[in-house]
Amino acid sequence: MSAAVLYMSVSLDGYIADAGDRLGGTDGNRLHHWGLMPDGETFRSGGVAGEMLAEYNATGAVVAGRRTVEIVDHWGGDHHGMPIFVPSHRPAGESAAKHPLVTYVTDGIASAMRQAKEAAGDRDVLVHGAYTGQRAIEAGVLDEVQIHQIPVLLGGGRRLFDTLPSPVELEIVRVIDTPEATHLRYRIRRA
Amino acid sequence: MSAAVLYMSVSLDGYIADAGDRLGGTDGNRLHHWGLMPDGETFRSGGVAGEMLAEYNATGAVVAGRRTVEIVDHWGGDHHGMPIFVPSHRPAGESAAKHPLVTYVTDGIASAMRQAKEAAGDRDVLVHGAYTGQRAIEAGVLDEVQIHQIPVLLGGGRRLFDTLPSPVELEIVRVIDTPEATHLRYRIRRA
Repeated sequence: MSAAVLYMSVSLDGYIADAGDRLGGTDGNRLHHWGLMPDGETFRSGGVAGEMLAEYNATGAVVAGRRTVEIVDHWGGDHHGMPIFVPSHRPAGESAAKHPLVTYVTDGIASAMRQAKEAAGDRDVLVHGAYTGQRAIEAGVLDEVQIHQIPVLLGGGRRLFDTLPSPVELEIVRVIDTPEATHLRYRIRRA
Repeated sequence: MSAAVLYMSVSLDGYIADAGDRLGGTDGNRLHHWGLMPDGETFRSGGVAGEMLAEYNATGAVVAGRRTVEIVDHWGGDHHGMPIFVPSHRPAGESAAKHPLVTYVTDGIASAMRQAKEAAGDRDVLVHGAYTGQRAIEAGVLDEVQIHQIPVLLGGGRRLFDTLPSPVELEIVRVIDTPEATHLRYRIRRA
């Protein structure tokens, strides 16, 4: 069964970015150190980080929030070659039109996820973005959450989880303990 | 070396209590299920929960926030028989006077921690409360954080971590993976 999985690096105090939408730390990228080579750009191919990268790359579609995709200009239109769906109530901006793999979905998160799952076939759907992740949980269309929990307190910024209309029970699926990050995978329990 | 350790049960979305100061869930105690027997009151003596309880009970003093102690009326004056220090800018209320092991400290968190460490001798100091924990981190007098991370999104309430004046780096000391909770212990790195 294909699953929609929210992948996010988050500080222990729950932040995914500082107030300036940087990922924290003196180089603005603290939350991704666990997965990056010392150059700060190349993803590690070995070890646990390599396993995580392989999981991302095995997904068959991406659902990402508008804020996320606009910060990175839709990853130049190419997120491991897979189709990218962006739920947004506003129509796509000019930059999106350059990218044939990018589709803006204006009729809601459930529709975006349905289209992504169709595109992904048997593969999982990679979900990115705090706002999008929470709306997907609310709408009952998120299946799993993969947190990379980083041993730092950022002290402020944008949170991964803000408020939800009611509590959501999770099942712990997998815990991977490394010095750089604790990789926690949860399955959302349906009420 | 004796350490000051913040012990807190927290939901994945970072809450230690719902908006009504309950711990969440239909019985108002969701965040403590991992440590409690089915009666909802007795702490488990076996397994990982028993090990955690043994760690609490091995501490030699308690520093707890005023909000925390007033909710539980100072644990009836007895928190595993150890002295309890309550940092507060306001003097103690009437209920505190009944409890000889309870000391209100009005000259700051650093003073409260110093007194607690003196009382604890070689043993650790157990720190309770979100506000108190954060003020201790800010003041540089907290050494470790023991999180019991519960697989639930409470969706709202009081947070363990709110804002800090600057980022704080942590070292992951121990990860214990159980179906009911992920027990994460961190050491605070001094700048």
